[in-house]
Amino acid sequence: MRATTIHAAGDIRVEDVPEPTLRRPTDAIVRVTAGCICGSDLWPYRGANPIRPGATIGHECVGVVEEVGDEVRDVRVGDFVVVPFCHCDNTCAHCRNGAQSVCVNLGFTVSGQAEYARVNQADGTLVRTPDAPDAELIPALLALSDVMPTGWHAAVSAGVRPGHTVVVIGDGAVGLCGVLAASVLGAERIIALSRHQPRQEVARSFGATHVVAARGEDAVAEVMELTDGVGVDAALECVGTDDAMTTAIEVTRPGGGVGFVGVPHGVELSARRLFDKNVGVRGGMAPVRRYLPELLPMVLDQRIDPGRVFDLTLPLEQSPEGYRAMDERRAIKVLLQP
Amino acid sequence: MRATTIHAAGDIRVEDVPEPTLRRPTDAIVRVTAGCICGSDLWPYRGANPIRPGATIGHECVGVVEEVGDEVRDVRVGDFVVVPFCHCDNTCAHCRNGAQSVCVNLGFTVSGQAEYARVNQADGTLVRTPDAPDAELIPALLALSDVMPTGWHAAVSAGVRPGHTVVVIGDGAVGLCGVLAASVLGAERIIALSRHQPRQEVARSFGATHVVAARGEDAVAEVMELTDGVGVDAALECVGTDDAMTTAIEVTRPGGGVGFVGVPHGVELSARRLFDKNVGVRGGMAPVRRYLPELLPMVLDQRIDPGRVFDLTLPLEQSPEGYRAMDERRAIKVLLQP
Repeated sequence: MRATTIHAAGDIRVEDVPEPTLRRPTDAIVRVTAGCICGSDLWPYRGANPIRPGATIGHECVGVVEEVGDEVRDVRVGDFVVVPFCHCDNTCAHCRNGAQSVCVNLGFTVSGQAEYARVNQADGTLVRTPDAPDAELIPALLALSDVMPTGWHAAVSAGVRPGHTVVVIGDGAVGLCGVLAASVLGAERIIALSRHQPRQEVARSFGATHVVAARGEDAVAEVMELTDGVGVDAALECVGTDDAMTTAIEVTRPGGGVGFVGVPHGVELSARRLFDKNVGVRGGMAPVRRYLPELLPMVLDQRIDPGRVFDLTLPLEQSPEGYRAMDERRAIKVLLQP
Repeated sequence: MRATTIHAAGDIRVEDVPEPTLRRPTDAIVRVTAGCICGSDLWPYRGANPIRPGATIGHECVGVVEEVGDEVRDVRVGDFVVVPFCHCDNTCAHCRNGAQSVCVNLGFTVSGQAEYARVNQADGTLVRTPDAPDAELIPALLALSDVMPTGWHAAVSAGVRPGHTVVVIGDGAVGLCGVLAASVLGAERIIALSRHQPRQEVARSFGATHVVAARGEDAVAEVMELTDGVGVDAALECVGTDDAMTTAIEVTRPGGGVGFVGVPHGVELSARRLFDKNVGVRGGMAPVRRYLPELLPMVLDQRIDPGRVFDLTLPLEQSPEGYRAMDERRAIKVLLQP
């Protein structure tokens, strides 16, 4: 099959690789209808994460079930499915407790930017749509495989509740989905930190009431001024850097919460600072499967359209251009069509 | 007046010092009926915190209002009051949000181990009892000035809910009150980490269902075994050391929460570890005033008796012996009678 592979920092290719096969009786193979590039794919692309040369890349996709293992009961060949990037059995103690991203049988999509992807624990992981969806719904459904549940997880972890004032740090697709999540969860004021006009526009369309174009200490000062010196009830840290985390903690009011979903890269948390402010911190990889029963109907009923984060669609063969566009911030998020 | 003072590490004295006076029209002076020694007083006693030689020490007390400033409306001379160790106006944005320990007019009791104490923001801080309480209730009421609300804050911050399995790290008076708080909040299983029999007994009387006498990695292994490898829903970190925090995070199940109330001394929080486990961390100085409307009736109705943490009562003149007894772990917590 044709698949996107990474060979070194900056070296993305589309090549012929072996098709994935069923390894365990709980696996399924999905024919990818649409995949996409994640902000976290840029970490190895930029040389910040180790790379196994020639490995396939991409963990987000939707598609049609092509083949299932002998023990798969709940999905059938031909079903259209959302594929959570983290696979789970949805039955272990952690899954039953809502921590599907720490499932004892955790797995990941590893060829989401390709023609086919293997899914471990198909019954626990995959969520079917009632019918084959209309083409215009594909981007929003694709956003459910990672980016929208991740923004949702940031909001839930930060403790967003109706009436809250919320700040969202990070104007990537996850941050934008965090804005949408905060809005759906009833936040009254949503302050998006963004310096890029196209992202500011999506943020506003997702419910941001204020946009702050500053960063670091200047951003802290602006947010504190917007909140009469009090700070926000909840901060969504959707970047993963120490600067972003520091900003999040500084703008959060005493007793408030920080939800963080960017994979931490060099983040130092000061227990003393959290103690002094009585600010809580919670986050991690999103338990995607947990949130889909809530989020999928919103997408199908077109109450939310997280698919707006895709502002560039390319054929799979042009994956390398997709990476360049995202790396250079010419695109928010790139959808790839096999 | 007679007051406990600290001159250097290990050098506690009882001396004549000037009586506190009203400084602001919102102040009150309380004649101390009972004060006590806090685990956090041991930090300077052991040389771990800076000391101003000759300063009074002690932040916990109950007593009778002796004098009030011109603007004090809600308490009157002669009222018996619980004195939260952190003083607050109970009207600012932080107080209204339940973060009274980060009040914009924050103050502290600084002569709780003495005959008299000044209270800032008397109306916002002090909580009266309906009548002069019976002598046998004094220890429990005294526990409401700090140690019981602090244990309660650990449990609330950790997210303890009915049916939960909870671990409490630290068998000082705060940890023991954390056990009591978890029990009142409906925890089904409460695992107390303690190696001292008298403390184990108080822990059991407060609702601990299991006692683990190990520490560090051994304690983690025992707790994980007790929870079938899953971990606890909530961990109460009531020490303030890096070891205690590490243990708390390690034994908490994915999606669970750590509540921490020990003032952090050298605690390193790994954002990556929290991310990987999806474990939340929240804590800080307890907003005592927030919890008193809930806790005071429990004490007055004798539904809870946090006064059991006091296992040594001394006249004020014997403060130095009280410090020695707590430092050497001969006493859990020492009540001082002026």
